[in-house]
Amino acid sequence: MLDERLDYTAENCSIARTLEIVGERWTLLLLREAFYGMRRFDDFIRALGCPRTVLSARLGKLVEAGLMRREEYREPGMRTRSEYRLTRQGVELFPILVALLQWGDHWMGDPQGPAVELTHRGCGAPLTLTLGCEAGHAPLSALDVQARPGPGARRAA
Amino acid sequence: MLDERLDYTAENCSIARTLEIVGERWTLLLLREAFYGMRRFDDFIRALGCPRTVLSARLGKLVEAGLMRREEYREPGMRTRSEYRLTRQGVELFPILVALLQWGDHWMGDPQGPAVELTHRGCGAPLTLTLGCEAGHAPLSALDVQARPGPGARRAA
Repeated sequence: MLDERLDYTAENCSIARTLEIVGERWTLLLLREAFYGMRRFDDFIRALGCPRTVLSARLGKLVEAGLMRREEYREPGMRTRSEYRLTRQGVELFPILVALLQWGDHWMGDPQGPAVELTHRGCGAPLTLTLGCEAGHAPLSALDVQARPGPGARRAA
Repeated sequence: MLDERLDYTAENCSIARTLEIVGERWTLLLLREAFYGMRRFDDFIRALGCPRTVLSARLGKLVEAGLMRREEYREPGMRTRSEYRLTRQGVELFPILVALLQWGDHWMGDPQGPAVELTHRGCGAPLTLTLGCEAGHAPLSALDVQARPGPGARRAA
């Protein structure tokens, strides 16, 4: 697919950069919960069952990277606590999660069907994630795709 | 987005299942190289710079899970070696990598542009990955999406 791959370095690969921020397992799972509407630390813990120190570190990293923002809230008689909400940059991670979900539903699904169904809120139709091209050809598979060095490609030493 | 999230368990979540197979950083990066057309162990090592034992374990896991298959080849005067090729199940992981790439290009790109450009082999137009619905509404964002328990949803204890 990509000729002369080894003539170029992967040091500025966008896939690797994205994975540096969201590539940890608990991070992608907590993002899943954030897309389901979850905001509170203790709810994340209940849903994920991960250690509190791990969740705290992962949320902190997402806030630092600008994918989530921390907001304070206070319920009557309680101390101030933090909520975590997706920023626009975080919301745009959604296709990554949909792609993971669709592959899992297709290849590893339970016989009774998916645990979660995603639909278009406006019309109720099932969600789709479609690989296509700007000229309107779709759906495409990986076999239809050509990869080539872009303007940011860096020659290997 | 998903009401009553905590009434259900995430134990059969398709995102988590997919991540169990491909969620490790080196796995996604070696899959990137496989999509670029790479097949040989020593080429993967050169491209990724990961420890040989790690690569060997990751490739073995992908073969065991049915995402890659191992084939033997032999060059004149050399011993038999193995090539690793994506199966159909592996090829269908492609949207995950495209989603990671597009987010990285958009939010973490270099000023000079992307390191790699993906185009439709048939017409040369840039590749797109579009969230839409089966009724034809597109593009959609996460904010347009409703998640609800599907037929495989399991009630929390």
